[in-house]
Amino acid sequence: MAQQTAISPTRAQDFPEWYQQVIKAADLAENSEVRGCMVIKPWGYAIWELIQQELDGRFKATGHTNAYFPLLIPVSYLEKEAEHAEGFATECAVVTHHRLEAQKDEVTGKTKMIPAGELTEKYVIRPTSETVIGAAFARWTSSYRDLPLKVNQWCNVMRWEMRTRLFLRTAEFLWQEGHTAHETQEEALEETHTMHKVYEDFQRDVLAIPSIPGEKTEAERFPGAIQTFTVEAMVQDRKAIQAGTSHFLGQNFAKAQDISFAGRDNTQQHAWTTSWGVSTRMIGALIMMHSDDDGLVCPPRVAPKQIVIIPVTPKEDTKQAVINHAQALADKLSAIRFHGQPIRVQVDTRDIGGGVKKWEWVKKGVPVRIEIGPRDLEKGSLCIARRDQPSNEKAFIAEDEFVANAEVLLQEIQDTLLKRARDFRDAHIRTASTMQELEDNFSGEGEADWLLVPWEASPEQEEELAKRLRISIRCIPCGEMGQGDSAPCILTGKPTTQRVLWARSY
Amino acid sequence: MAQQTAISPTRAQDFPEWYQQVIKAADLAENSEVRGCMVIKPWGYAIWELIQQELDGRFKATGHTNAYFPLLIPVSYLEKEAEHAEGFATECAVVTHHRLEAQKDEVTGKTKMIPAGELTEKYVIRPTSETVIGAAFARWTSSYRDLPLKVNQWCNVMRWEMRTRLFLRTAEFLWQEGHTAHETQEEALEETHTMHKVYEDFQRDVLAIPSIPGEKTEAERFPGAIQTFTVEAMVQDRKAIQAGTSHFLGQNFAKAQDISFAGRDNTQQHAWTTSWGVSTRMIGALIMMHSDDDGLVCPPRVAPKQIVIIPVTPKEDTKQAVINHAQALADKLSAIRFHGQPIRVQVDTRDIGGGVKKWEWVKKGVPVRIEIGPRDLEKGSLCIARRDQPSNEKAFIAEDEFVANAEVLLQEIQDTLLKRARDFRDAHIRTASTMQELEDNFSGEGEADWLLVPWEASPEQEEELAKRLRISIRCIPCGEMGQGDSAPCILTGKPTTQRVLWARSY
Repeated sequence: MAQQTAISPTRAQDFPEWYQQVIKAADLAENSEVRGCMVIKPWGYAIWELIQQELDGRFKATGHTNAYFPLLIPVSYLEKEAEHAEGFATECAVVTHHRLEAQKDEVTGKTKMIPAGELTEKYVIRPTSETVIGAAFARWTSSYRDLPLKVNQWCNVMRWEMRTRLFLRTAEFLWQEGHTAHETQEEALEETHTMHKVYEDFQRDVLAIPSIPGEKTEAERFPGAIQTFTVEAMVQDRKAIQAGTSHFLGQNFAKAQDISFAGRDNTQQHAWTTSWGVSTRMIGALIMMHSDDDGLVCPPRVAPKQIVIIPVTPKEDTKQAVINHAQALADKLSAIRFHGQPIRVQVDTRDIGGGVKKWEWVKKGVPVRIEIGPRDLEKGSLCIARRDQPSNEKAFIAEDEFVANAEVLLQEIQDTLLKRARDFRDAHIRTASTMQELEDNFSGEGEADWLLVPWEASPEQEEELAKRLRISIRCIPCGEMGQGDSAPCILTGKPTTQRVLWARSY
Repeated sequence: MAQQTAISPTRAQDFPEWYQQVIKAADLAENSEVRGCMVIKPWGYAIWELIQQELDGRFKATGHTNAYFPLLIPVSYLEKEAEHAEGFATECAVVTHHRLEAQKDEVTGKTKMIPAGELTEKYVIRPTSETVIGAAFARWTSSYRDLPLKVNQWCNVMRWEMRTRLFLRTAEFLWQEGHTAHETQEEALEETHTMHKVYEDFQRDVLAIPSIPGEKTEAERFPGAIQTFTVEAMVQDRKAIQAGTSHFLGQNFAKAQDISFAGRDNTQQHAWTTSWGVSTRMIGALIMMHSDDDGLVCPPRVAPKQIVIIPVTPKEDTKQAVINHAQALADKLSAIRFHGQPIRVQVDTRDIGGGVKKWEWVKKGVPVRIEIGPRDLEKGSLCIARRDQPSNEKAFIAEDEFVANAEVLLQEIQDTLLKRARDFRDAHIRTASTMQELEDNFSGEGEADWLLVPWEASPEQEEELAKRLRISIRCIPCGEMGQGDSAPCILTGKPTTQRVLWARSY
C-alpha cells in the first residue's frame, strides 16, 4: 500500500498540481479575483521579508542605496528605446483616464462607474523601470564626478501575462530592481558581474538553491541589453527557473535618454548603465526546489519560524507546567543567534488536536518541530522531528544538549537541503555531442535532463529549435562548464569551444 | 545686516517655498516628469526605511502580520460601497487596456505607441485597499474561529491629485495600510484605538512630533467609516498636517462585501472591520516641524546618519593619521547602541572643501558633526556641532568623554526637538468662545493659531464655515482637551461640553 501523504497529488503523479497544493497547504498565497494578480498571504510574505532583509544587506554592502521612482511610465518614454518598448508593449497595463463617473444604466436602473477624464499623455504601469530611472539619471548626471550612481528599489511591477502561475508568473509581482550608471564600460561590466555573483551566493547560501550562473544568448537577452547574465535553478521536475538576472546595458539606454556627462578630458560622454533584479518568482523556485509530498520544506535561513514547540498536554493537572516549560525553552532558544539573528521560535498552544497541529507545521515547512509532554519534563528530554527527514522519524534528545546544539542543527538542515539539491542537479545535467542525443532527450512530454552541448549557431536557428522542441538555451555557463575542447556545434557542425545548456523551463 | 542662511527664502519670508528648498538642499526628493509623482531620493528614502522599520516592529508587537494584495481594483468592487466609491471616484487612475500597438503617424512618419486590447472589466490603481482586502477577508472567514484577521501591507497607492506638493500631497505615495476584521464591535473599537495610540506614540518618541490625537467630525471622516481617529501635527507655520488615521468601519464594508461568519451561537454574522494608515506624508510633516533656515533638522532616531566625522587635513604629512583616527573613532561610535541599533556614523573623506562639506551635512540635518584635525589628535579632543543649536556654535570636548556620552547626547537632541515642538504647539493653541474671536483669528491670509471652541453644529454648518474661512475642524481632541464645562456652541449657541480644534491645514 502506498504511504499516505499530506499533499495530493504527489510530485510523481502531477508536479504542476502538486505545486499548487503545496502553496495552498502552506497558506503561502492564493489567486485573487483580479486577473493574474495574487494575494501573498502572511506565511508567504514572511518568506519574502526574510529574502528582502538578506538581499538588502548585500546590496548596501556593495555600495547601493535604496530610492523610489514613479509607478507610471509615460508611453513616450517607452518609445525612446525601440527594442525595449517592443519587448514590453504586448503585456502592459495602460492607464488612460484619471477618474470615474457614476452613470445610471437605463435598463437595469443600477449605477455603474465609467472611466472619465481621458489623459492626453497615456501611461503604462512599470513592467520594469529602466526608462523612468534613466530619465532621473539624466537629470542627476552632468560631470564624471556625479558617477557612479548606484540605486535599488523594492517595488511592484506589472506584466500582463496571459497564463499565470502563483509566484512563478503573475501579472503583478514584487521585486527589486537595481540600476546603476558608470563612467566607463569596465566599471559597468564589473558591476554587472558583482551583482550576478551576489545573486548566486545569496541563492546558494540562503535559499539552498545551487543555481547555475551563466550568460544568456542573444535570443534570450533582456530587451535593450548588450549582455544578460542569469542564475538558473533546476527544480525537482528538472525544469529550469530563471531566478535572477543582471544586465549590462552598454550605452543603449544612456543614448536613448541622454544620460551624459562632461568627462575627465572635458568631452561630453554617455554613461554606461546596468540593471539587475530578482522577484517573488524566487519563492516559486524555492518551493519547487525543496518541498516534498508532505508540503513545503523551508530552508532554515528563510523559514518564518525555524522551530515550533508543541506542548503535549494529555492531563489537566500537568498542562500549565508543560506550557510554562515550553515557553521557557522558547526563551532559551530565542536568545541564541543563527546567522546574526535570534532563532525564530513559536510555541503553539492552540486548543486543537495534536495531529492536526503537527501536520499544519509539517505542511508549512518549519525546519524543526519539538514535542514536549509531562514525561519529557521528568526526563529532561525532548522529542525532535526534522523537516528534512521523513515525517515519521523522531529523535529523543536531552534538552540541554538540544539547546547547546540548536544553531548547528539549523545549519545542518540548511546544508542538507543544499547538498540534496546540488546532487540532484549534478545527476541531471549531461553532456551531448549530437542532435540525435538532444532530440531523444527532449522527445515526448515527460521530464528531461539538462543537456550541455557545443553550440555555435545563429539566433534564428536557436529560436527554430527552441520552438520545435519547446526547450530553450538557459545559459552559456560561467567558468569551466561553459567551455570545452573544440568540438562541432551539434546543429551546424561548426567547431566551437563554447558550451550551452538546453532545458525545459518555467 | 541679516545673518546669511543656507536656505533662501527663509521660513519667515516664504514658508512654502522654503519647504521646497529644504527638500532640494537636503536632496530628499524631486518632482518627476510623471504628473504628480515624485522621485524619493536616497536620503529621503533612508528616512522612510527607518520609519518603516520602527513602525513595522510596533505593528508586529501588537499582533499584526504583513501580507500583500493586488495593486488593481476592479471597478465593480468600488461600486459595492457607494460612499467609499464616491469618495475616491474623482481621483483615480483607470486601467482600460492591456497592451500597446505601434502605429506609424502618417504625417510625421514617426512611430507612436497606441493603447490596444481594451479590457472588459476596467480597473483602478488602488487609492486604498478596503475593497480588495475585504474580498480576501470574505474568502478567509467562515467561522468565528477564523477571527480576528489582523494584516498590514506596505505599498504604493495612487490618488490623482490636481495640486501636488512633495511628500505632503502627491499622486502616488508610499504608505502602510492595516486592515483587521473582528468578531465583535468592542474588539474592533479596541483595535482602532490601539493603532491610533501606536501612531501617537511613534510620532512623539521617534519623529519628535507631538501630535494632537482626536476624532474627526462626520464631515471629515474617511469615506465609509463610522469613526475616524487622527493625529494632527502643528508645523512651524501653524498649519495642521493630518499625519495618520485609524478608522472604525463598523459593519459597512463587511456587509458590502459579505465578510460573514458562523458565530458562537451558530447564527450568521457580519464581521466588524478597521483600517489604519500612515504615509510618506509624515516625512513632509517631519521636515516642516523641525527644520530651520539652514536646512533639514532630522531627529536622531530617523536620521540616516546620526554622526558625521569630517577629518580636517591641512597638511599632507598628517593627513593619513587624521583619517585613520577618524575611522577609529567611527568604529568606537558604531559599537554603541542607540535604541537598540548601532549608532549610524559616516566619515566624510571626500576631497572637497571643508566649508562645502560642512554645509552639506548641515543642510541634510545630521544631528551631530565632528571635526577632527591634527591638533585635536595631539590634545585628544574633538570639535562638536549639534544640529539643534545655531550653526556657528561649536564645543570642544575630550574624545573619551564624547564617546562615553554619545548615546545620551543623541537622546538629548531628540528630546530638545520634541520639547521645542511641544512648546511651540502649546503656545499656539488657544481657546475661543465667540464667533468674533474665530473670525478675527482666521481673517486674512497670514499664519493663525489653532482655536479650541465649544461646538455643536451640523455637518452642513461646519462645511459652510470651513469653506468661507478656508479652515477645518482638525479633530475633537481625545481626553481632557476635547471636553469642558457646558458652554454655548460658538456657531449655534446650543450648550455643549464638546470642544473642537479649528485650524488651517495642508
